[in-house]
Amino acid sequence: MIDAKHIETLRALLGEKGLLTEPADMAAYETGARYDKGRAAFVARPASTQETSAVVSYCVKNGIALVPQSGNTGLVSGSTPDSSGQEGILSLDRLTAPFALDRVNRTLAAGAGLRLSDVNQRLEQAGLFFPIDLGADPRLGGMIATNTGGSRFLRYGDVRRNTLGLTVVLADEAGTVLELGSGLRKNNTGIDWKHVFIGTSGAFGIVTECVLNLEPLPRQTATAFLVPAATDRVPDLLLAMEDALGSYLSAFEGMSKNAVAAALAHVPSLRNPFQGGIVPDFVILAEISRTSPPREGEQPLDAVLEEVLAAIWEHEDAPLADAFVGPAHEMWALRHALSEGVKHSGRLIAFDLSFRRGDIMRFLDHMKAEMPAHFADVTICDFGHIGDGGVHFNLVVPADDPRLADAGFESSLREWVFKMAVEDFGGSYSAEHAIGRKNQVFYDRYTPDEIRRLARGLKAITSPAPLGCVTF
Amino acid sequence: MIDAKHIETLRALLGEKGLLTEPADMAAYETGARYDKGRAAFVARPASTQETSAVVSYCVKNGIALVPQSGNTGLVSGSTPDSSGQEGILSLDRLTAPFALDRVNRTLAAGAGLRLSDVNQRLEQAGLFFPIDLGADPRLGGMIATNTGGSRFLRYGDVRRNTLGLTVVLADEAGTVLELGSGLRKNNTGIDWKHVFIGTSGAFGIVTECVLNLEPLPRQTATAFLVPAATDRVPDLLLAMEDALGSYLSAFEGMSKNAVAAALAHVPSLRNPFQGGIVPDFVILAEISRTSPPREGEQPLDAVLEEVLAAIWEHEDAPLADAFVGPAHEMWALRHALSEGVKHSGRLIAFDLSFRRGDIMRFLDHMKAEMPAHFADVTICDFGHIGDGGVHFNLVVPADDPRLADAGFESSLREWVFKMAVEDFGGSYSAEHAIGRKNQVFYDRYTPDEIRRLARGLKAITSPAPLGCVTF
Repeated sequence: MIDAKHIETLRALLGEKGLLTEPADMAAYETGARYDKGRAAFVARPASTQETSAVVSYCVKNGIALVPQSGNTGLVSGSTPDSSGQEGILSLDRLTAPFALDRVNRTLAAGAGLRLSDVNQRLEQAGLFFPIDLGADPRLGGMIATNTGGSRFLRYGDVRRNTLGLTVVLADEAGTVLELGSGLRKNNTGIDWKHVFIGTSGAFGIVTECVLNLEPLPRQTATAFLVPAATDRVPDLLLAMEDALGSYLSAFEGMSKNAVAAALAHVPSLRNPFQGGIVPDFVILAEISRTSPPREGEQPLDAVLEEVLAAIWEHEDAPLADAFVGPAHEMWALRHALSEGVKHSGRLIAFDLSFRRGDIMRFLDHMKAEMPAHFADVTICDFGHIGDGGVHFNLVVPADDPRLADAGFESSLREWVFKMAVEDFGGSYSAEHAIGRKNQVFYDRYTPDEIRRLARGLKAITSPAPLGCVTF
Repeated sequence: MIDAKHIETLRALLGEKGLLTEPADMAAYETGARYDKGRAAFVARPASTQETSAVVSYCVKNGIALVPQSGNTGLVSGSTPDSSGQEGILSLDRLTAPFALDRVNRTLAAGAGLRLSDVNQRLEQAGLFFPIDLGADPRLGGMIATNTGGSRFLRYGDVRRNTLGLTVVLADEAGTVLELGSGLRKNNTGIDWKHVFIGTSGAFGIVTECVLNLEPLPRQTATAFLVPAATDRVPDLLLAMEDALGSYLSAFEGMSKNAVAAALAHVPSLRNPFQGGIVPDFVILAEISRTSPPREGEQPLDAVLEEVLAAIWEHEDAPLADAFVGPAHEMWALRHALSEGVKHSGRLIAFDLSFRRGDIMRFLDHMKAEMPAHFADVTICDFGHIGDGGVHFNLVVPADDPRLADAGFESSLREWVFKMAVEDFGGSYSAEHAIGRKNQVFYDRYTPDEIRRLARGLKAITSPAPLGCVTF
C-alpha cells in the first residue's frame, strides 16, 4: 500500500475530482477497454500540464511508480497497472484543453486527453479532420505514444507524420515541461525531439498537449470489394490500382475469408455482399476519394472506379478475379466488424505485425500452409492494411480447447509466429501498438545491443525515473 | 598540419582514389557550390559503409576533426571546413551504392552519395520519383542532414517524411555502424532513431545509406500565376484553392515583385509573362497535378484550374485580382530562376525562414514597411513556399555599397531580421538548411537550456567526438 500521507498530498495537489482511490471509482481505469486488468494504488487525473508536472515531480521524488493512461484501448498492456496494487495510474482524461483550431495553418492545438471521435466531430463543420482512421476510439496522448496508423495510412500516414508539436512532462524530480514545436511545418534548428516521445509507449515522458496537422475532409468517395486472382497476385493488384488511380487511392485493406465469415456470423447487422453468399478466400476493400467537391462535367468517382477495375480485369493475366463497387458505409461496416467478429469466434490470440509490401501475402500464405503441422485447430483470421504492409494476424482457438489451460501453449504459439514474422520475413512484431508489457520480451530479444545501450542512455537523460509499462 | 603518418594510414585504408591531399584536387571540396570557402587537411572519400567506419574510427582515436560533406550545395556553412587547414573532409561522393528499387514496396535503397537528379533520372522509367523538388542538386546524405523540403512540400512533405531507413556511422572510437529501419512503413518497436540523424547537420553521425519512400510521378499537371487582391489576402486565396482543389494542389509558391524583376533582368532565357510587362507586387505560382493518367471523358487539368480560378474570382470580395493558366515549364522556369536573378542584383544576404501559414505574409508586409527606417537601400527580394510557411527572405545590398566593408553592417542586419522572425513572429531561423556554422549563434541563443542539455547528452551517447560544423 502507498502511504496515506502521499495520497493526502496528491489530493491536495489535484483536488477531489483529480484523485481517485475508491475501488469502485478506479475499476474502469484498472481494466483495459479491450484486454487487460491490473490493480492501481490510485488514479491521478491532472487537468493541466502544470498539475501533471506537479504529480510527476512528487511521485518521482517519493519513488512512486506511475503508469500513464490515455484511452486504454490498446492490445499490448501499455496502459494498465500490474497486479501489485503499488503503481499509480496517471490518467490523461481530464487533459481536454486546449482545443484551438488555426484555420489558415490547418492545425489544431489540443489536449492529449481528447478522444479521436470528439476531435473529429468538433472539426467537421470546418471541413477538416485529423486523418487517422481507427476501429477503436483512443485519446490523443495514447495515439502519440503508440504512433497509430490505421486504415488510411496509405494516403495520410501515421500519427508521427501528422504531429507538429508536443508538450511533454518528463519523469524527473522537477517534472520538467518541454515545449516541442509550435505548429511550424518546416523547422530544422536542432534535434526534432518530438520523435523521442512518439511511438515509445510513454516511457520517455507524458504528452499533455499536441499540435496536429489537419487534412480536408474527403467530399467524394467510392469503394469496391476486389477478389484477387490468387493471393500471390495481391501485390500486382495493388500496383495496378496505384498506377491507374495514383493518390486517389485512400485504402487498400485485406480481409481473409475466415475473418469475413466470423464477422458475418457474429454481427447480425451485416449483409453478406458476396454472390450466392460465398465468401472468397481473400477480399480487398479498395477506397478512392477526393477532397475536392464534385464538379459539373466530372465523372462520378463510382464510375471512375468501375472503369479502372474493368480495365484491370480485361487485361490478359489479370490479377483480379472479381470486383464490385458498392456503398461505402456498407463495405466499411464489414471491414470494421472484423475485429468484433473474430473476438466472438473463440479465444483470440492477436498479433499486430507489419512487413514490406511485397512480403505480406508471402507471409500469410506461408503461415496458412505451415500452421496445421505446427498447431492443430488454430484458425488464422487475418485482416489488415495491405497498402502499407500492416496485418492484424489473429489466431482463434476453440473456446473450450483444453490446451488453453496450459500457459505454455499460447506462449509457444506466440514464439513461433514472432520468429517467422521477424526472423524469417524481416517484419515488425508491433506495427501500430508499440511495445507495452506484452511485447517487452520481444523488445529485449530483437533489439540490437547497441540500440538498447542508446535507448538506456536516452532514458537516463530525459526521464530517469521509471514510467509506464516498458523498460527500455 | 596533420602528421604525415596519419595521411599514410588513411591512404592505406582508402586507396589512391579514396584520399586527396593535393591542393588542386581538394579545391573543389573546399569551396561550396553556392557560398563558402575553407581549407582542408585532406579529403577522405570512402566507397562503402565499412570504409567510412574505418576512417571515422581512426580519426576519432587520433583526435582528427572531420567535416562530413555531401553535395556541398547548402547556404549555412554546414559542409565546408574552417580556414585552419586542420579539419579533414569526409566526402560522401563515392558512396553511390546501392541503388536497389523495390517496386512493390515503392522504396529505394540508395547510397548517400547519389545526387537527387541522378536518383530521379534512374527512377523515371519505373514511373516513380523521390518527391523532393529543389532548385539545387544535392546528394542524398546532405538532404537527410538538412531535412530539405522544397517546392512540393505541400503535397509530399519533407525528407523526414520520405525516409524509411538509414545506415549511420557514429563518431566514436569503434566507428559504430547503426542499421535503422529497413523499408517497413509501420514499425513501432522502440525509439525511431532515424530522427536523431535527420535535420541535425551531420553532428550525430554520418549517413552512408538510406531507404527512401518513392511516389508515382505526376502524369497530369497544370500551373497558373495568381495575383492576390492584396498581400494580406494571400491566406484566403490559399484556403480557397485548398478548398476547391483538395489534394490536387501540389505547389503554392510566392514570388515578390523584386525577385521576379531580378530574374527577368538577369536571366535572358526568360519571357516576361505579365500583361504589358508590368510585374505585380506579389505573384503566386500554383500547380495542380494528378498521378493518374488522363482518362477519356475527364476534363483536362488546365480546364479544371481555369474553372476553379474563375469561380474564386467571381466571388464577392474575391482574394484574387488576376490569374492566368500557362505552360508549366515556363512558369517553373521563372520560379527556379529567382535565386539566380537575385544573386546578380547585388550583394545577397540570404535567410531561410519559416512561419505558421497565417503569419508569413504579415511578416513580409511588416518587414517591407519597417526596412527603410532601419536599413536604407536594402531591397527585399523574397520568394518561397507559402503553402508550407517557408520563405527565402533575401536581402540585396548594392554591390558597391561602402557599408559592406563594415562587418558590423551585415551582422546587425541579420540580428534585426532574426529577432523579428523568431521573437516577434514565432518563426524559425532555419526552415530547410539546418544549422551549419552560420546559424550556430542563433542555435545558442534561441534553444532553451533544457533542450541544449538534452542535446549535449544525446551527442555524448551517440557520437562523442566532434563531427561537422555545428556544436550542439
